[in-house]
Amino acid sequence: MAQKPSIPKGTRDFGPQETARRNYIFQTIREVFASYGYQQIETPAMENLSTLMGKYGEEGDQLLFKILNSGDFMRGVPEADLRQGSPTRLAARLCEKGLRYDLTVPFARYVVQHRDELTLPFRRYQIQPVWRADRPQKGRYREFCQCDADVVGSDSLLCEAELLQMVDTVFSRFGIRVRIKVNNRKILSGLAELIGESDKIVDITVAIDKLDKIGLDGVNAELRQSGLGEESIALLQPIINLSGTNEEKLATMRRTLADVPVGLKGLDEVDFVLGTLQGLELRGEVELDLTLARGLNYYTGCIFEVKALDVEIGSITGGGRYDNLTGIFGLEGLSGVGISFGADRIYDVLEGLNLYPDDLTTSTRLLFVNFGAAEAAYCLPLAARVRAAGISCELYPDSAKMKKQMQYANQRGIPYVAIAGETEMAQGKVTLKDMATGQQRLLSVSELISSIQPHG
Amino acid sequence: MAQKPSIPKGTRDFGPQETARRNYIFQTIREVFASYGYQQIETPAMENLSTLMGKYGEEGDQLLFKILNSGDFMRGVPEADLRQGSPTRLAARLCEKGLRYDLTVPFARYVVQHRDELTLPFRRYQIQPVWRADRPQKGRYREFCQCDADVVGSDSLLCEAELLQMVDTVFSRFGIRVRIKVNNRKILSGLAELIGESDKIVDITVAIDKLDKIGLDGVNAELRQSGLGEESIALLQPIINLSGTNEEKLATMRRTLADVPVGLKGLDEVDFVLGTLQGLELRGEVELDLTLARGLNYYTGCIFEVKALDVEIGSITGGGRYDNLTGIFGLEGLSGVGISFGADRIYDVLEGLNLYPDDLTTSTRLLFVNFGAAEAAYCLPLAARVRAAGISCELYPDSAKMKKQMQYANQRGIPYVAIAGETEMAQGKVTLKDMATGQQRLLSVSELISSIQPHG
Repeated sequence: MAQKPSIPKGTRDFGPQETARRNYIFQTIREVFASYGYQQIETPAMENLSTLMGKYGEEGDQLLFKILNSGDFMRGVPEADLRQGSPTRLAARLCEKGLRYDLTVPFARYVVQHRDELTLPFRRYQIQPVWRADRPQKGRYREFCQCDADVVGSDSLLCEAELLQMVDTVFSRFGIRVRIKVNNRKILSGLAELIGESDKIVDITVAIDKLDKIGLDGVNAELRQSGLGEESIALLQPIINLSGTNEEKLATMRRTLADVPVGLKGLDEVDFVLGTLQGLELRGEVELDLTLARGLNYYTGCIFEVKALDVEIGSITGGGRYDNLTGIFGLEGLSGVGISFGADRIYDVLEGLNLYPDDLTTSTRLLFVNFGAAEAAYCLPLAARVRAAGISCELYPDSAKMKKQMQYANQRGIPYVAIAGETEMAQGKVTLKDMATGQQRLLSVSELISSIQPHG
Repeated sequence: MAQKPSIPKGTRDFGPQETARRNYIFQTIREVFASYGYQQIETPAMENLSTLMGKYGEEGDQLLFKILNSGDFMRGVPEADLRQGSPTRLAARLCEKGLRYDLTVPFARYVVQHRDELTLPFRRYQIQPVWRADRPQKGRYREFCQCDADVVGSDSLLCEAELLQMVDTVFSRFGIRVRIKVNNRKILSGLAELIGESDKIVDITVAIDKLDKIGLDGVNAELRQSGLGEESIALLQPIINLSGTNEEKLATMRRTLADVPVGLKGLDEVDFVLGTLQGLELRGEVELDLTLARGLNYYTGCIFEVKALDVEIGSITGGGRYDNLTGIFGLEGLSGVGISFGADRIYDVLEGLNLYPDDLTTSTRLLFVNFGAAEAAYCLPLAARVRAAGISCELYPDSAKMKKQMQYANQRGIPYVAIAGETEMAQGKVTLKDMATGQQRLLSVSELISSIQPHG
């Protein structure tokens, strides 16, 4: 036999059970999004490279999957680009299109392109795969699904509160206990200003963000490496080590940043969001965490991140506010704020904690055994009636040996089997076998239907 | 302002209404598939080119979207391929992966790769986009969605009957009146054998397939062009013009093909499928049509095609049996049969006939007006209670002018608005406005919930 075929590294096939579980995740998130008035859109897998390039930093440009132009793609490519040019430059000659890298840039493009059709504020959600040419490793894939909700066209901090409320509802439905971490870019800017190192804000926050991973000494070493003086590092210590309740942290920081307006603005924003959430009885903990510094190249206000409490895994949801979302496409003055659920990690958490509902995997509730042409013809209209009652069922397509058909039912996890031979046909009935108990009963179709209805 | 951004030609953005309608199509098809015990799988957007190439004919190879290798993709490409080679050959050097072109080849690959995990017969369905570098034109896109159901691992003609029953159920749920056309490759083979032109079977069937488009004279002209003698063409006339009921057609063909075993086998197969369906009270007409000749390079038995009766449009669903589905990947002896729903054309038919359910488009049922911080804080827990009752609602995020907020409700098609100012807050109530009638009522939240429940 030929070599087994395979799929590109970093990609995955999803079998029936995995697909059912993924659909459960998407459907739960979708229902919560919709209950808050978010509307679903979809954008093409391929975008023009001019839309994608330069939006994710230099590393992102490298990680874009580029699509070779159709037809005679070499025509007109200058000899120089071919031989002396960089791969990046040559790729730009050979490829006009790329696969989307996230859902935020396509959304910004969508808003600008369709701005005349949109009613603002526009609450949209989008659940689609994205592709990144990352080095494949455990838990990191080249094709994975993002579930994003964003509001564009409102500066209101109620949007931040709403998004966190949605996060809490989603994880409460999944039964996953979470801690929601909140920070604000403006607080970090205020800190950098306070120690007179505004130009080093990215280095500072990148270092602080690693506290969990490399510990306090590691963070301080990194700060030193990025050129911060001992005095500045000393000033940062109480902040890196900040503890207590959210109220205590806010109070400490208000004193620290008393003379830094941008920092106070950030504290006010966080204060408002936390205060708003207090009235809403969230299940998860919400924690102000100044070491949270994700996505600093684009977030400008609040930043969020969600951690599962009962599993060791990275962030399972994140987001924040990005002023001027659509500026990159020439439409100024529109602010956006959004969250992105990581479906793959949520999948792993649900599996690890054994939280999937029991009834997800079996798509068939009843198998009609096939004893031959006449019996099959007798069963087909009965099967149609069972389906009309909302119960999934199938007729085994071949009149194979009884043992083989029962094995099939077992392997598929089908809970009930209907048997109709001469005796049953003469009475217009079927024998229903419960695969779990082995019990058999002779029933009319309506009796059968009411016996195996999932809820009743 | 910069130039408006755009998307690659032949691709589409789907706004909220289109996405809701497409979801309705997918969900309906999904429910029917699942009710027959079909299990959903998903495969990656990217497949190795070795999986895809050579499976769709030479034209198909050209229409595959190929993905440029990551990193230094020029390294090791021989100078000869660069300058003298064909684009196809060079593309094979630059690209290892391509976007999937249909769902059948990835399914065959899946079955072979996962054969040790599968219980046969395996009924699977798959709803995913596919990509083809076709010249974009009206109704033909470079990214479009296929909805496929296949059974692999059974030769039983009950599978064919079941698939057509599913087709009928799907279109009956949509409210689309259809004609299901059935033919069998073996009948066509028998005909070619009868006139002594077995080697011309593809030419003959391609010509006959065009009867609708180019008429009888056109078909005969094509037959002549492909080298058929006048005698052969004369022999084919009664078949091309075959009319009457399915029974009459079968009887005529049985006489015509009396001495051609393969032809009789084809007639027996069609006879069985049509006979089986007769007991099942389908809504749509099922018609034996000998001019139906789709997909002859791969189908080996029954062939199906579905036409909408009330709209001028091409086939909206098609399928057939392909023996040895997995032979291309080295696993011999597995027969498959399947159908593929064309979601894009079904979309157009539903739109043309105005058959979409009314309640698809609005995702929000109730808007809370925002009068300021205190009022918003009062509304937020109420909104949470409304959502907990299964009703979608939103709070306008900014305390904008009342007129602007009402305009927003109108433009979004939100049917109810909740207003809470000082008076309402003092009484713990809200004023509910029905946007259609303009009627306003002062209600408690529980009264509000029971007033606006969609069903009750």
